[in-house]
Amino acid sequence: MHTTVVNSLLGAIDDIGRDARRGGYSRPVYSEAELTLREWFTAEATARGLDVSTDANGIIWAWWDLPNAADAGDASRDGALVTGSHLDSVPGGGAFDGPLGVASALAAYDLLAAREAAGELHRTRALAIAVFPEEEGSRFGVACLGSRLLAGAIDPVRALALRDRDGNTFADVATAHGLDPDRMGRDDATLARIGHFVELHVEQGRGLNSEAYTDHAGRGPAIAVGNSILGHGRWRLRFTGQGNHAGTTLMTDRADPMVAAAQTIIAVRAIAAAQDDARATVGRIEPIPGGTNVIASIVDVWLDVRHPDDAITAAIVEKIHLDAQTIAAAEGCAVELVEESLSGTVHFDTTLTRSLVDSVRGRVPDAPLLPTGAGHDAGVLAAVVPTGMIYVRNPTGISHSPEEFVEDADADAGALALAEALADLL
Amino acid sequence: MHTTVVNSLLGAIDDIGRDARRGGYSRPVYSEAELTLREWFTAEATARGLDVSTDANGIIWAWWDLPNAADAGDASRDGALVTGSHLDSVPGGGAFDGPLGVASALAAYDLLAAREAAGELHRTRALAIAVFPEEEGSRFGVACLGSRLLAGAIDPVRALALRDRDGNTFADVATAHGLDPDRMGRDDATLARIGHFVELHVEQGRGLNSEAYTDHAGRGPAIAVGNSILGHGRWRLRFTGQGNHAGTTLMTDRADPMVAAAQTIIAVRAIAAAQDDARATVGRIEPIPGGTNVIASIVDVWLDVRHPDDAITAAIVEKIHLDAQTIAAAEGCAVELVEESLSGTVHFDTTLTRSLVDSVRGRVPDAPLLPTGAGHDAGVLAAVVPTGMIYVRNPTGISHSPEEFVEDADADAGALALAEALADLL
Repeated sequence: MHTTVVNSLLGAIDDIGRDARRGGYSRPVYSEAELTLREWFTAEATARGLDVSTDANGIIWAWWDLPNAADAGDASRDGALVTGSHLDSVPGGGAFDGPLGVASALAAYDLLAAREAAGELHRTRALAIAVFPEEEGSRFGVACLGSRLLAGAIDPVRALALRDRDGNTFADVATAHGLDPDRMGRDDATLARIGHFVELHVEQGRGLNSEAYTDHAGRGPAIAVGNSILGHGRWRLRFTGQGNHAGTTLMTDRADPMVAAAQTIIAVRAIAAAQDDARATVGRIEPIPGGTNVIASIVDVWLDVRHPDDAITAAIVEKIHLDAQTIAAAEGCAVELVEESLSGTVHFDTTLTRSLVDSVRGRVPDAPLLPTGAGHDAGVLAAVVPTGMIYVRNPTGISHSPEEFVEDADADAGALALAEALADLL
Repeated sequence: MHTTVVNSLLGAIDDIGRDARRGGYSRPVYSEAELTLREWFTAEATARGLDVSTDANGIIWAWWDLPNAADAGDASRDGALVTGSHLDSVPGGGAFDGPLGVASALAAYDLLAAREAAGELHRTRALAIAVFPEEEGSRFGVACLGSRLLAGAIDPVRALALRDRDGNTFADVATAHGLDPDRMGRDDATLARIGHFVELHVEQGRGLNSEAYTDHAGRGPAIAVGNSILGHGRWRLRFTGQGNHAGTTLMTDRADPMVAAAQTIIAVRAIAAAQDDARATVGRIEPIPGGTNVIASIVDVWLDVRHPDDAITAAIVEKIHLDAQTIAAAEGCAVELVEESLSGTVHFDTTLTRSLVDSVRGRVPDAPLLPTGAGHDAGVLAAVVPTGMIYVRNPTGISHSPEEFVEDADADAGALALAEALADLL
């Protein structure tokens, strides 16, 4: 294995979906960019002899059946080992969040296939690489939409009615890309094929580079095994006031939802800062109508809240809502809170996690167990199948940003560790 | 004259550029909607026998030459009387801001033409109706862009480099609509044709409905004559922080430009409220990248500030900038302030204003003189030609909103008063 194999694979998609305004990549699900990435993955998997298909929920599956499988029939795939990640990005995201797990899966397959050809690997089950759509929720607002549909974690009627910023429904967009809305939703036949799911992902914080793990040079281990995902959710706060002319409306005559939204953003920061282990963020805000010389009539604010204790997450959101109501009333405005998604804290399968730790420590002896604050398809699937995760070191911890970065050597260490872990589970 | 003639004219464009999401109308300059309105005006003017042309800056002129004019040659139009307004709107604006002045000009022409045909009007000069592009600045960010170019109040190099939200330059958009960027800018030949400019506009505040003017039923006079326009400007504050993942980044590790922007919005309100006669507004904010699960790396905030005393406007903006710098530094962010436009307080031509008052009080005896906080093309042209304004009553004072409203009777009173005023100046 060359020392840049994973990042070389990613090099082929380096130009796809670049965002000139934000920097980095914008690859929303079913955009031209994300579709190009899907074609890239399909071509890479097909070139390796894998059997590629897309399921009813838009998840791509690339199958490495057992050498003695009579055909690509269903029964021989039941209980298979599955790895993979996603190809969509946040607006202006980095190159690794998602694609690293897909490229590492391809690289790990190459290693495993070589070992099988050499008679060093004797599988007892099939392996599949899966690519999940709309992991980020950056187009339709619900993160992990593909895995949620597969696992039955979202009502398909609700999912199909979701709209993107241009007003297109998920139903219409899915239909335009060859999916049948009537067939979307929990898919027990596909779930039965997932014996274990292992997702490799770039770390999105500084866990591997925290003081507990770094050496005298300040460098942490290349990889970690995940043990939990922080509970998190998304809410929309809609502030409604009186739209009016910015020049003619006296300051004393205003009911300005922008002012109420701003005060609430400050409250969000204060409430989260006062609670250990909490994170609360407003990263998206949209005034309506949004003109410079217009007092807004409506301001929508999106809220992302996370805490290990689901009851505390709920309490934080409740406190933000109460504060927002008080703030809005004082400004002569109203506010309503709508939950867009909510996921409890996830603890990965302990047996699988132990196996992953044993496997990867053969290559990276100091690989720690790490919790994460980032949501993943693995977190959704953990409710229905045994699931585990491997993280690759991110030197700065920066993610969801063009500055997200993974060193070549760490990316390859990740693929080697993934291959080792998969071999031990096959 | 029917009692609904002006609003009947506007009825023909009632469906053009409706904004389903914001309510009201979105008719940005050179959009399909605004181009349709230009075609409507051209057809209406042509049907009346007026000679319609578009000048180098995209301003439409409809000429009613003198009956004895040898041809439509230049000299016979020099020093003409000009009225008119604009057809573009803010996002989600009302039906009257702009189009009322254009429709009233057409209705006033009808009255004047009938009087001339009856031998009751003997003109000494030509009349023109002008339609100015990008009065709102809602597409390219600079209000009154057409009149600024004509009057030399903006460097055409700067104007041509302005970009809309999709990244298109004004140069490219103007070229696509048949204008020659090399010919744009101050146009002395066209300015020489404007002997006087009179703009009729819906009032955008509650001046006519203020206690000083309302009768026992709370109803103010139908029209007013303008005497001044509040100085105003637009600035963009760009807050730059560290984009990152909303779930994995500890609250203590953040440099979140959204928090700094929110604190600044609150400071804007406090600073304006503490200063008599000041107005300061944030109606537009754009986080980059703008994802729900992403701490923004940049937040752009647009600021609209107005005060009768230009020195105080400058002091308000300076104080906001200083506060923003302190706020940004405390959050680990940076901030830069860019002036997008600035207009000093305008006092209209006193001789013309006195003439307008004398003329309109023949029809509306209690028509007051009113200042306004709203900017207008008349305010820009006042620097180069004698200019005056007539306002029509707005029962709620609400403007830049779908709720903007003018009663039929008031609209017609406005057109009658405009006709009277123009007749006295012709």
